[in-house]
Amino acid sequence: MPREITAFSNPLIKRVRGLRDKRHRREEGLFLAEGLRILAEAEEAGTLPELFFYAVDSARHPIVQRLIGKVEAQGGEAIETSRDILHKLSGKDNPQVVLGVYRQFDTSLARIDRTTSGIWLVAQAIRDPGNLGTMLRTGDAVGAGGLILIDDTVDPFSVEAVRASMGAMFTQTIAQASWEEFLPWLRGGEGQLVGLSLEASEDYRRPKYAPPTFLLVGNEAQGLPADYAAACDVRVKIPMLGKADSLNAAISCAVMAYQVLAQRKPLTGGQGISAR
Amino acid sequence: MPREITAFSNPLIKRVRGLRDKRHRREEGLFLAEGLRILAEAEEAGTLPELFFYAVDSARHPIVQRLIGKVEAQGGEAIETSRDILHKLSGKDNPQVVLGVYRQFDTSLARIDRTTSGIWLVAQAIRDPGNLGTMLRTGDAVGAGGLILIDDTVDPFSVEAVRASMGAMFTQTIAQASWEEFLPWLRGGEGQLVGLSLEASEDYRRPKYAPPTFLLVGNEAQGLPADYAAACDVRVKIPMLGKADSLNAAISCAVMAYQVLAQRKPLTGGQGISAR
Repeated sequence: MPREITAFSNPLIKRVRGLRDKRHRREEGLFLAEGLRILAEAEEAGTLPELFFYAVDSARHPIVQRLIGKVEAQGGEAIETSRDILHKLSGKDNPQVVLGVYRQFDTSLARIDRTTSGIWLVAQAIRDPGNLGTMLRTGDAVGAGGLILIDDTVDPFSVEAVRASMGAMFTQTIAQASWEEFLPWLRGGEGQLVGLSLEASEDYRRPKYAPPTFLLVGNEAQGLPADYAAACDVRVKIPMLGKADSLNAAISCAVMAYQVLAQRKPLTGGQGISAR
Repeated sequence: MPREITAFSNPLIKRVRGLRDKRHRREEGLFLAEGLRILAEAEEAGTLPELFFYAVDSARHPIVQRLIGKVEAQGGEAIETSRDILHKLSGKDNPQVVLGVYRQFDTSLARIDRTTSGIWLVAQAIRDPGNLGTMLRTGDAVGAGGLILIDDTVDPFSVEAVRASMGAMFTQTIAQASWEEFLPWLRGGEGQLVGLSLEASEDYRRPKYAPPTFLLVGNEAQGLPADYAAACDVRVKIPMLGKADSLNAAISCAVMAYQVLAQRKPLTGGQGISAR
Protein backbone atom coordinates (compact mmCIF):
# COMPACT_ATOMS: atom_id res chain seq x y z
CA MET A 1 0.00 0.00 0.00
CA PRO A 2 1.75 3.20 -1.16
CA ARG A 3 2.49 5.84 1.41
CA GLU A 4 1.57 9.43 0.61
CA ILE A 5 3.94 12.34 1.18
CA THR A 6 2.69 15.86 0.65
CA ALA A 7 4.89 17.90 2.99
CA PHE A 8 8.14 19.43 1.82
CA SER A 9 9.37 19.18 5.38
CA ASN A 10 9.20 15.38 5.41
CA PRO A 11 12.70 14.14 6.38
CA LEU A 12 12.68 11.53 3.60
CA ILE A 13 12.29 14.28 0.99
CA LYS A 14 15.35 16.02 2.35
CA ARG A 15 17.33 12.79 2.37
CA VAL A 16 16.41 11.87 -1.20
CA ARG A 17 17.10 15.38 -2.41
CA GLY A 18 20.54 15.05 -0.81
CA LEU A 19 21.37 12.23 -3.23
CA ARG A 20 22.02 14.83 -5.91
CA ASP A 21 25.22 15.46 -3.98
CA LYS A 22 28.12 13.03 -4.47
CA ARG A 23 29.12 12.86 -0.82
CA HIS A 24 25.61 11.95 0.26
CA ARG A 25 25.34 9.35 -2.49
CA ARG A 26 28.54 7.72 -1.30
CA GLU A 27 27.51 7.78 2.36
CA GLU A 28 24.10 6.29 1.62
CA GLY A 29 25.25 3.93 -1.13
CA LEU A 30 22.26 5.03 -3.19
CA PHE A 31 21.57 6.96 -6.37
CA LEU A 32 18.68 8.57 -8.26
CA ALA A 33 17.12 7.82 -11.61
CA GLU A 34 14.22 9.77 -13.10
CA GLY A 35 11.63 9.19 -15.79
CA LEU A 36 9.36 6.37 -16.90
CA ARG A 37 11.65 5.34 -19.73
CA ILE A 38 14.73 4.89 -17.56
CA LEU A 39 12.90 3.19 -14.70
CA ALA A 40 11.22 0.79 -17.13
CA GLU A 41 14.62 0.04 -18.70
CA ALA A 42 15.99 -0.70 -15.23
CA GLU A 43 13.05 -2.97 -14.45
CA GLU A 44 13.58 -4.87 -17.68
CA ALA A 45 17.21 -5.35 -16.70
CA GLY A 46 16.01 -6.80 -13.40
CA THR A 47 16.73 -3.78 -11.20
CA LEU A 48 14.07 -2.22 -9.00
CA PRO A 49 14.34 0.91 -6.87
CA GLU A 50 14.28 0.72 -3.08
CA LEU A 51 12.12 3.82 -3.02
CA PHE A 52 9.75 4.62 -5.83
CA PHE A 53 8.18 8.09 -6.03
CA TYR A 54 5.37 8.81 -8.46
CA ALA A 55 3.14 11.82 -9.10
CA VAL A 56 -0.41 11.39 -7.86
CA ASP A 57 -1.76 12.23 -11.33
CA SER A 58 0.25 9.40 -12.91
CA ALA A 59 -0.88 6.73 -10.44
CA ARG A 60 -2.99 4.95 -13.08
CA HIS A 61 -0.24 4.69 -15.69
CA PRO A 62 0.34 0.97 -16.38
CA ILE A 63 4.12 1.22 -15.84
CA VAL A 64 3.57 3.05 -12.56
CA GLN A 65 1.04 0.42 -11.46
CA ARG A 66 3.44 -2.38 -12.32
CA LEU A 67 6.37 -0.72 -10.54
CA ILE A 68 4.32 -0.11 -7.39
CA GLY A 69 3.49 -3.81 -7.25
CA LYS A 70 7.01 -5.02 -7.93
CA VAL A 71 8.73 -2.57 -5.60
CA GLU A 72 6.43 -3.46 -2.71
CA ALA A 73 6.76 -7.19 -3.44
CA GLN A 74 10.53 -6.99 -2.99
CA GLY A 75 10.20 -5.01 0.26
CA GLY A 76 10.76 -1.56 -1.17
CA GLU A 77 8.52 1.42 -0.69
CA ALA A 78 6.21 3.15 -3.18
CA ILE A 79 5.43 6.78 -2.37
CA GLU A 80 2.70 8.86 -3.94
CA THR A 81 3.53 12.52 -4.03
CA SER A 82 2.91 15.82 -5.80
CA ARG A 83 4.53 17.33 -8.86
CA ASP A 84 5.82 20.10 -6.62
CA ILE A 85 7.71 17.65 -4.47
CA LEU A 86 9.04 15.82 -7.53
CA HIS A 87 10.19 19.21 -8.77
CA LYS A 88 12.01 19.70 -5.48
CA LEU A 89 13.57 16.23 -5.66
CA SER A 90 14.73 16.53 -9.25
CA GLY A 91 15.64 20.21 -9.28
CA LYS A 92 14.11 20.49 -12.74
CA ASP A 93 11.37 22.82 -13.93
CA ASN A 94 9.53 20.01 -15.66
CA PRO A 95 10.16 17.05 -13.39
CA GLN A 96 9.59 13.52 -14.59
CA VAL A 97 6.49 11.84 -13.14
CA VAL A 98 8.53 9.10 -11.47
CA LEU A 99 11.79 8.95 -9.56
CA GLY A 100 13.58 5.89 -8.20
CA VAL A 101 16.17 5.57 -5.47
CA TYR A 102 18.50 2.68 -6.30
CA ARG A 103 21.22 0.85 -4.43
CA GLN A 104 24.68 1.57 -5.91
CA PHE A 105 26.25 -1.54 -7.35
CA ASP A 106 29.75 -2.91 -7.10
CA THR A 107 32.08 -1.35 -9.67
CA SER A 108 35.17 -3.46 -9.15
CA LEU A 109 37.06 -4.86 -12.14
CA ALA A 110 36.15 -8.33 -10.91
CA ARG A 111 32.66 -7.72 -12.26
CA ILE A 112 33.91 -7.66 -15.86
CA ASP A 113 33.65 -10.98 -17.68
CA ARG A 114 35.49 -10.21 -20.90
CA THR A 115 34.13 -13.31 -22.62
CA THR A 116 30.63 -11.84 -22.70
CA SER A 117 31.29 -9.24 -25.41
CA GLY A 118 33.69 -8.44 -28.22
CA ILE A 119 33.78 -4.71 -27.42
CA TRP A 120 34.48 -2.91 -24.14
CA LEU A 121 34.71 0.84 -23.72
CA VAL A 122 37.43 2.27 -21.49
CA ALA A 123 37.46 5.96 -20.55
CA GLN A 124 40.25 7.70 -18.70
CA ALA A 125 39.64 10.61 -16.31
CA ILE A 126 36.33 11.61 -17.89
CA ARG A 127 35.04 14.79 -16.24
CA ASP A 128 31.69 15.42 -17.84
CA PRO A 129 28.77 13.32 -16.56
CA GLY A 130 26.93 13.82 -19.86
CA ASN A 131 29.87 12.28 -21.72
CA LEU A 132 30.00 9.37 -19.29
CA GLY A 133 26.28 8.68 -19.63
CA THR A 134 26.42 9.04 -23.41
CA MET A 135 29.25 6.48 -23.55
CA LEU A 136 27.08 4.03 -21.62
CA ARG A 137 24.22 4.64 -24.05
CA THR A 138 26.54 4.15 -27.02
CA GLY A 139 27.94 1.01 -25.38
CA ASP A 140 24.44 -0.40 -25.20
CA ALA A 141 23.87 0.41 -28.89
CA VAL A 142 27.07 -1.26 -30.13
CA GLY A 143 26.59 -4.32 -27.93
CA ALA A 144 29.54 -3.50 -25.70
CA GLY A 145 29.86 -5.38 -22.44
CA GLY A 146 30.38 -2.27 -20.38
CA LEU A 147 32.41 0.79 -19.54
CA ILE A 148 35.62 0.72 -17.53
CA LEU A 149 36.44 4.05 -15.88
CA ILE A 150 40.15 4.64 -15.40
CA ASP A 151 41.65 6.94 -12.77
CA ASP A 152 39.70 9.82 -11.29
CA THR A 153 36.45 10.25 -13.20
CA VAL A 154 33.16 11.96 -12.57
CA ASP A 155 30.76 9.86 -10.47
CA PRO A 156 28.89 7.36 -12.70
CA PHE A 157 26.03 7.49 -10.19
CA SER A 158 25.51 11.24 -10.67
CA VAL A 159 22.03 12.33 -11.72
CA GLU A 160 23.36 13.78 -15.00
CA ALA A 161 25.26 10.61 -15.96
CA VAL A 162 22.26 8.40 -15.22
CA ARG A 163 20.04 10.72 -17.26
CA ALA A 164 22.39 10.80 -20.27
CA SER A 165 22.71 6.99 -20.19
CA MET A 166 18.98 6.71 -20.93
CA GLY A 167 18.82 3.48 -18.97
CA ALA A 168 22.09 1.95 -20.21
CA MET A 169 23.28 2.56 -16.65
CA PHE A 170 21.36 -0.61 -15.82
CA THR A 171 22.32 -2.75 -18.81
CA GLN A 172 26.05 -2.01 -19.16
CA THR A 173 28.56 -3.31 -16.64
CA ILE A 174 30.47 -0.43 -15.05
CA ALA A 175 33.88 -0.79 -13.45
CA GLN A 176 36.24 1.72 -11.87
CA ALA A 177 39.99 1.19 -11.54
CA SER A 178 43.31 2.97 -11.52
CA TRP A 179 45.56 2.51 -14.54
CA GLU A 180 47.91 0.49 -12.32
CA GLU A 181 45.08 -1.90 -11.52
CA PHE A 182 43.62 -2.00 -15.00
CA LEU A 183 46.69 -2.83 -17.08
CA PRO A 184 47.74 -6.03 -15.21
CA TRP A 185 44.10 -7.11 -15.14
CA LEU A 186 43.84 -6.63 -18.90
CA ARG A 187 47.10 -8.49 -19.57
CA GLY A 188 45.90 -11.34 -17.38
CA GLY A 189 43.58 -12.47 -20.16
CA GLU A 190 42.95 -12.04 -23.84
CA GLY A 191 42.14 -8.60 -25.17
CA GLN A 192 43.40 -5.99 -27.60
CA LEU A 193 43.89 -2.53 -26.12
CA VAL A 194 43.23 0.17 -28.70
CA GLY A 195 44.13 3.73 -27.77
CA LEU A 196 42.61 6.72 -29.46
CA SER A 197 45.23 9.46 -29.64
CA LEU A 198 45.74 12.67 -31.56
CA GLU A 199 49.43 11.78 -31.80
CA ALA A 200 48.81 8.42 -33.49
CA SER A 201 49.71 8.10 -37.16
CA GLU A 202 47.40 5.25 -38.09
CA ASP A 203 43.89 5.90 -39.40
CA TYR A 204 41.25 4.25 -37.20
CA ARG A 205 39.90 2.34 -40.20
CA ARG A 206 43.13 0.53 -40.94
CA PRO A 207 43.81 -1.97 -38.10
CA LYS A 208 42.07 -5.29 -37.79
CA TYR A 209 40.41 -5.23 -34.39
CA ALA A 210 40.53 -8.53 -32.51
CA PRO A 211 37.85 -9.41 -29.97
CA PRO A 212 37.65 -8.65 -27.17
CA THR A 213 38.64 -5.12 -28.18
CA PHE A 214 39.10 -2.59 -25.39
CA LEU A 215 38.64 0.94 -26.79
CA LEU A 216 40.49 3.48 -24.67
CA VAL A 217 39.67 7.21 -24.87
CA GLY A 218 41.30 9.90 -22.77
CA ASN A 219 40.23 12.90 -20.75
CA GLU A 220 38.23 15.65 -22.50
CA ALA A 221 40.92 18.33 -22.18
CA GLN A 222 44.22 16.44 -22.15
CA GLY A 223 43.50 13.35 -24.21
CA LEU A 224 45.32 10.12 -23.46
CA PRO A 225 48.62 10.41 -21.50
CA ALA A 226 51.61 9.42 -23.65
CA ASP A 227 52.57 6.47 -21.45
CA TYR A 228 49.03 5.12 -21.51
CA ALA A 229 49.03 5.33 -25.31
CA ALA A 230 52.43 3.60 -25.38
CA ALA A 231 51.03 0.65 -23.43
CA CYS A 232 48.30 0.05 -26.02
CA ASP A 233 48.54 -2.71 -28.62
CA VAL A 234 47.29 -0.34 -31.31
CA ARG A 235 47.15 3.45 -31.45
CA VAL A 236 44.83 5.10 -33.91
CA LYS A 237 43.48 8.53 -34.75
CA ILE A 238 40.25 9.73 -36.26
CA PRO A 239 41.03 12.14 -39.10
CA MET A 240 39.95 15.74 -38.61
CA LEU A 241 39.68 18.16 -41.48
CA GLY A 242 38.71 21.33 -39.66
CA LYS A 243 40.24 24.24 -37.84
CA ALA A 244 40.10 22.60 -34.42
CA ASP A 245 41.94 19.40 -33.64
CA SER A 246 39.60 17.53 -31.39
CA LEU A 247 36.29 15.77 -31.16
CA ASN A 248 34.11 15.42 -28.10
CA ALA A 249 35.27 12.36 -26.13
CA ALA A 250 31.92 10.54 -26.36
CA ILE A 251 31.79 11.25 -30.10
CA SER A 252 35.29 9.80 -30.68
CA CYS A 253 34.34 6.76 -28.66
CA ALA A 254 31.20 6.18 -30.76
CA VAL A 255 32.90 6.64 -34.13
CA MET A 256 35.55 4.09 -33.07
CA ALA A 257 33.03 1.62 -31.67
CA TYR A 258 30.94 1.67 -34.85
CA GLN A 259 34.11 1.10 -36.88
CA VAL A 260 34.84 -2.03 -34.84
CA LEU A 261 31.25 -3.17 -35.30
CA ALA A 262 31.42 -2.51 -39.06
CA GLN A 263 34.46 -4.81 -39.37
CA ARG A 264 32.58 -7.61 -37.66
CA LYS A 265 29.45 -7.26 -39.71
CA PRO A 266 30.07 -7.61 -43.42
CA LEU A 267 27.35 -5.85 -45.39
CA THR A 268 25.64 -8.85 -46.96
CA GLY A 269 21.87 -8.65 -47.13
CA GLY A 270 19.63 -7.95 -44.18
CA GLN A 271 21.13 -10.43 -41.73
CA GLY A 272 21.36 -9.97 -38.01
CA ILE A 273 24.58 -8.54 -36.68
CA SER A 274 26.76 -9.34 -33.73
CA ALA A 275 29.43 -7.51 -31.81
CA ARG A 276 31.58 -10.62 -31.66
CA MET B 1 43.75 51.65 -23.35
CA PRO B 2 41.75 49.01 -21.44
CA ARG B 3 39.13 50.18 -19.02
CA GLU B 4 39.07 48.66 -15.56
CA ILE B 5 35.87 47.46 -13.88
CA THR B 6 36.01 46.28 -10.30
CA ALA B 7 32.48 46.99 -9.07
CA PHE B 8 29.76 44.36 -9.29
CA SER B 9 27.26 47.21 -9.50
CA ASN B 10 28.65 48.49 -12.79
CA PRO B 11 25.70 48.57 -15.23
CA LEU B 12 27.78 46.92 -17.99
CA ILE B 13 28.32 43.88 -15.77
CA LYS B 14 24.60 43.53 -15.33
CA ARG B 15 23.99 43.90 -19.06
CA VAL B 16 26.60 41.32 -20.02
CA ARG B 17 25.39 38.91 -17.40
CA GLY B 18 21.92 39.29 -18.89
CA LEU B 19 23.19 37.75 -22.14
CA ARG B 20 22.95 34.32 -20.52
CA ASP B 21 19.22 34.78 -21.06
CA LYS B 22 17.81 34.15 -24.53
CA ARG B 23 15.45 37.12 -24.54
CA HIS B 24 18.23 39.54 -23.67
CA ARG B 25 20.50 38.00 -26.30
CA ARG B 26 17.84 38.53 -28.93
CA GLU B 27 17.09 42.11 -27.86
CA GLU B 28 20.77 43.04 -27.84
CA GLY B 29 21.77 40.96 -30.87
CA LEU B 30 24.80 39.78 -28.92
CA PHE B 31 26.13 36.56 -27.40
CA LEU B 32 28.84 35.34 -25.03
CA ALA B 33 31.85 33.12 -25.55
CA GLU B 34 34.28 32.16 -22.80
CA GLY B 35 37.81 30.81 -22.63
CA LEU B 36 41.12 31.46 -24.35
CA ARG B 37 40.77 28.52 -26.68
CA ILE B 38 37.39 29.56 -28.05
CA LEU B 39 38.25 33.25 -28.32
CA ALA B 40 41.50 32.41 -30.13
CA GLU B 41 39.57 30.12 -32.49
CA ALA B 42 37.15 32.98 -33.19
CA GLU B 43 40.04 35.37 -33.82
CA GLU B 44 41.61 32.92 -36.24
CA ALA B 45 38.29 32.74 -38.08
CA GLY B 46 38.36 36.55 -38.34
CA THR B 47 35.81 37.29 -35.62
CA LEU B 48 36.59 39.64 -32.75
CA PRO B 49 34.40 40.44 -29.75
CA GLU B 50 32.87 43.89 -29.32
CA LEU B 51 33.63 43.69 -25.61
CA PHE B 52 36.59 41.72 -24.33
CA PHE B 53 36.85 40.97 -20.59
CA TYR B 54 40.02 39.52 -19.13
CA ALA B 55 41.18 38.73 -15.60
CA VAL B 56 43.78 41.17 -14.28
CA ASP B 57 46.13 38.27 -13.49
CA SER B 58 46.05 37.10 -17.12
CA ALA B 59 46.82 40.52 -18.62
CA ARG B 60 50.31 39.45 -19.73
CA HIS B 61 49.20 36.29 -21.53
CA PRO B 62 50.24 36.65 -25.19
CA ILE B 63 46.75 35.79 -26.51
CA VAL B 64 45.19 38.32 -24.13
CA GLN B 65 47.70 40.97 -25.20
CA ARG B 66 46.99 40.30 -28.86
CA LEU B 67 43.22 40.36 -28.36
CA ILE B 68 43.37 43.65 -26.45
CA GLY B 69 45.23 45.22 -29.36
CA LYS B 70 42.96 43.83 -32.05
CA VAL B 71 39.70 44.55 -30.23
CA GLU B 72 40.68 48.17 -29.60
CA ALA B 73 41.94 48.60 -33.16
CA GLN B 74 38.51 47.67 -34.52
CA GLY B 75 36.74 50.05 -32.14
CA GLY B 76 35.75 47.50 -29.52
CA GLU B 77 36.46 47.74 -25.84
CA ALA B 78 38.90 45.75 -23.70
CA ILE B 79 38.02 45.56 -20.03
CA GLU B 80 40.30 44.43 -17.24
CA THR B 81 38.44 42.91 -14.35
CA SER B 82 38.63 40.47 -11.42
CA ARG B 83 38.09 36.73 -11.26
CA ASP B 84 35.13 37.41 -9.01
CA ILE B 85 33.42 39.48 -11.66
CA LEU B 86 34.23 36.89 -14.33
CA HIS B 87 32.67 34.35 -12.02
CA LYS B 88 29.56 36.49 -11.84
CA LEU B 89 29.47 36.92 -15.62
CA SER B 90 29.96 33.25 -16.41
CA GLY B 91 27.98 31.75 -13.55
CA LYS B 92 30.69 29.10 -13.17
CA ASP B 93 32.74 28.25 -10.10
CA ASN B 94 35.97 28.19 -12.07
CA PRO B 95 35.42 30.94 -14.63
CA GLN B 96 37.58 31.17 -17.72
CA VAL B 97 40.10 34.03 -17.65
CA VAL B 98 38.57 35.69 -20.71
CA LEU B 99 35.06 36.37 -21.95
CA GLY B 100 33.98 37.94 -25.21
CA VAL B 101 30.73 39.61 -26.18
CA TYR B 102 30.10 39.01 -29.88
CA ARG B 103 27.59 40.35 -32.38
CA GLN B 104 25.10 37.66 -33.45
CA PHE B 105 25.43 36.85 -37.12
CA ASP B 106 22.83 36.34 -39.80
CA THR B 107 21.48 32.78 -39.83
CA SER B 108 19.35 32.87 -42.95
CA LEU B 109 19.52 30.05 -45.47
CA ALA B 110 20.91 32.56 -47.96
CA ARG B 111 24.22 32.31 -46.13
CA ILE B 112 24.70 28.68 -47.18
CA ASP B 113 26.80 28.20 -50.30
CA ARG B 114 26.41 24.48 -50.93
CA THR B 115 29.31 24.40 -53.35
CA THR B 116 31.80 25.02 -50.55
CA SER B 117 31.54 21.55 -48.97
CA GLY B 118 30.48 18.01 -49.72
CA ILE B 119 28.82 17.53 -46.31
CA TRP B 120 26.22 19.61 -44.51
CA LEU B 121 24.60 18.72 -41.22
CA VAL B 122 20.88 19.36 -40.77
CA ALA B 123 19.23 19.01 -37.35
CA GLN B 124 15.51 19.17 -36.73
CA ALA B 125 14.05 20.57 -33.50
CA ILE B 126 17.18 19.93 -31.42
CA ARG B 127 16.49 20.84 -27.79
CA ASP B 128 19.79 20.32 -26.02
CA PRO B 129 22.37 23.09 -26.43
CA GLY B 130 25.18 20.61 -25.72
CA ASN B 131 24.02 18.47 -28.65
CA LEU B 132 23.83 21.51 -30.91
CA GLY B 133 27.32 22.66 -29.97
CA THR B 134 28.72 19.14 -30.31
CA MET B 135 27.25 18.89 -33.82
CA LEU B 136 29.06 22.11 -34.76
CA ARG B 137 32.30 20.70 -33.35
CA THR B 138 31.79 17.44 -35.26
CA GLY B 139 30.95 19.43 -38.39
CA ASP B 140 34.29 21.20 -38.12
CA ALA B 141 36.09 17.86 -37.73
CA VAL B 142 34.49 16.24 -40.77
CA GLY B 143 34.95 19.31 -42.94
CA ALA B 144 31.24 20.07 -43.14
CA GLY B 145 30.18 23.44 -44.45
CA GLY B 146 27.83 24.12 -41.59
CA LEU B 147 24.75 23.22 -39.61
CA ILE B 148 21.20 23.96 -40.74
CA LEU B 149 18.70 24.08 -37.88
CA ILE B 150 15.18 23.11 -38.87
CA ASP B 151 12.03 24.22 -37.06
CA ASP B 152 12.09 25.28 -33.44
CA THR B 153 15.49 24.51 -31.95
CA VAL B 154 17.43 25.61 -28.91
CA ASP B 155 19.22 28.93 -29.42
CA PRO B 156 22.59 28.37 -31.18
CA PHE B 157 23.85 31.53 -29.44
CA SER B 158 23.26 30.07 -25.97
CA VAL B 159 26.27 29.95 -23.67
CA GLU B 160 26.09 26.14 -23.46
CA ALA B 161 25.95 25.65 -27.24
CA VAL B 162 28.88 28.00 -27.80
CA ARG B 163 30.87 26.20 -25.10
CA ALA B 164 30.16 22.71 -26.51
CA SER B 165 31.13 23.88 -30.00
CA MET B 166 34.68 24.55 -28.77
CA GLY B 167 35.02 27.38 -31.28
CA ALA B 168 33.32 25.67 -34.23
CA MET B 169 30.57 28.26 -33.65
CA PHE B 170 32.89 30.64 -35.52
CA THR B 171 34.08 28.33 -38.30
CA GLN B 172 30.85 26.54 -39.29
CA THR B 173 28.09 28.36 -41.13
CA ILE B 174 24.85 28.24 -39.15
CA ALA B 175 21.41 28.64 -40.70
CA GLN B 176 17.91 28.46 -39.23
CA ALA B 177 14.81 27.68 -41.27
CA SER B 178 11.43 26.04 -41.10
CA TRP B 179 11.00 22.75 -42.96
CA GLU B 180 8.72 24.60 -45.41
CA GLU B 181 11.56 26.99 -46.20
CA PHE B 182 14.31 24.41 -46.20
CA LEU B 183 12.90 21.81 -48.59
CA PRO B 184 12.28 24.15 -51.57
CA TRP B 185 15.66 25.76 -50.96
CA LEU B 186 17.35 22.35 -51.02
CA ARG B 187 15.52 21.28 -54.18
CA GLY B 188 16.52 24.53 -55.85
CA GLY B 189 20.04 23.18 -56.30
CA GLU B 190 22.01 19.98 -56.22
CA GLY B 191 22.12 17.98 -53.02
CA GLN B 192 21.25 14.56 -51.64
CA LEU B 193 19.05 14.63 -48.54
CA VAL B 194 19.82 11.69 -46.25
CA GLY B 195 17.49 11.09 -43.35
CA LEU B 196 18.51 9.14 -40.28
CA SER B 197 15.48 7.25 -39.02
CA LEU B 198 14.82 4.34 -36.68
CA GLU B 199 12.11 3.19 -39.12
CA ALA B 200 14.48 2.98 -42.10
CA SER B 201 15.44 -0.49 -43.34
CA GLU B 202 18.72 0.36 -45.02
CA ASP B 203 22.02 0.15 -43.13
CA TYR B 204 23.83 3.50 -43.12
CA ARG B 205 26.90 1.89 -44.71
CA ARG B 206 25.10 0.75 -47.83
CA PRO B 207 24.12 3.84 -49.89
CA LYS B 208 26.53 5.75 -52.04
CA TYR B 209 26.45 9.30 -50.74
CA ALA B 210 26.62 11.98 -53.43
CA PRO B 211 28.05 15.39 -52.64
CA PRO B 212 26.76 17.72 -51.45
CA THR B 213 25.21 15.36 -48.90
CA PHE B 214 22.77 16.88 -46.41
CA LEU B 215 22.59 14.66 -43.31
CA LEU B 216 19.28 15.12 -41.51
CA VAL B 217 18.82 14.04 -37.88
CA GLY B 218 15.67 14.52 -35.85
CA ASN B 219 14.70 15.70 -32.40
CA GLU B 220 16.21 13.93 -29.38
CA ALA B 221 12.95 12.47 -28.10
CA GLN B 222 10.79 12.02 -31.20
CA GLY B 223 13.30 11.41 -33.96
CA LEU B 224 12.53 12.50 -37.51
CA PRO B 225 8.81 13.05 -38.35
CA ALA B 226 7.55 10.46 -40.87
CA ASP B 227 6.77 13.05 -43.55
CA TYR B 228 10.23 14.58 -43.23
CA ALA B 229 11.78 11.13 -43.65
CA ALA B 230 9.54 10.49 -46.66
CA ALA B 231 10.85 13.64 -48.36
CA CYS B 232 14.46 12.43 -48.13
CA ASP B 233 16.31 10.92 -51.09
CA VAL B 234 17.72 8.20 -48.87
CA ARG B 235 16.64 6.92 -45.46
CA VAL B 236 19.12 4.97 -43.38
CA LYS B 237 19.46 3.57 -39.89
CA ILE B 238 22.44 2.92 -37.68
CA PRO B 239 22.22 -0.64 -36.32
CA MET B 240 21.72 -0.98 -32.58
CA LEU B 241 22.38 -4.23 -30.77
CA GLY B 242 21.37 -3.29 -27.24
CA LYS B 243 18.34 -3.09 -25.04
CA ALA B 244 17.52 0.49 -25.91
CA ASP B 245 16.69 1.61 -29.43
CA SER B 246 18.30 4.98 -29.71
CA LEU B 247 21.55 6.84 -29.81
CA ASN B 248 22.19 10.39 -28.69
CA ALA B 249 21.37 12.74 -31.60
CA ALA B 250 24.88 14.22 -31.80
CA ILE B 251 26.38 10.71 -31.71
CA SER B 252 24.17 9.50 -34.60
CA CYS B 253 25.09 12.57 -36.56
CA ALA B 254 28.83 11.94 -36.05
CA VAL B 255 28.71 8.23 -36.91
CA MET B 256 26.88 9.11 -40.16
CA ALA B 257 29.19 11.98 -41.03
CA TYR B 258 32.31 9.83 -40.59
CA GLN B 259 30.73 7.15 -42.79
CA VAL B 260 30.26 9.73 -45.56
CA LEU B 261 33.85 10.86 -45.08
CA ALA B 262 35.11 7.27 -45.17
CA GLN B 263 33.46 6.72 -48.57
CA ARG B 264 35.22 9.74 -49.97
CA LYS B 265 38.63 8.86 -48.65
CA PRO B 266 39.83 5.48 -49.80
CA LEU B 267 42.38 4.08 -47.36
CA THR B 268 45.49 4.18 -49.55
CA GLY B 269 48.66 5.31 -47.84
CA GLY B 270 49.04 8.47 -45.84
CA GLN B 271 47.51 10.90 -48.28
CA GLY B 272 45.58 13.98 -47.38
CA ILE B 273 41.84 13.64 -47.23
CA SER B 274 38.99 15.81 -48.38
CA ALA B 275 35.30 16.06 -47.61
CA ARG B 276 34.44 16.48 -51.26
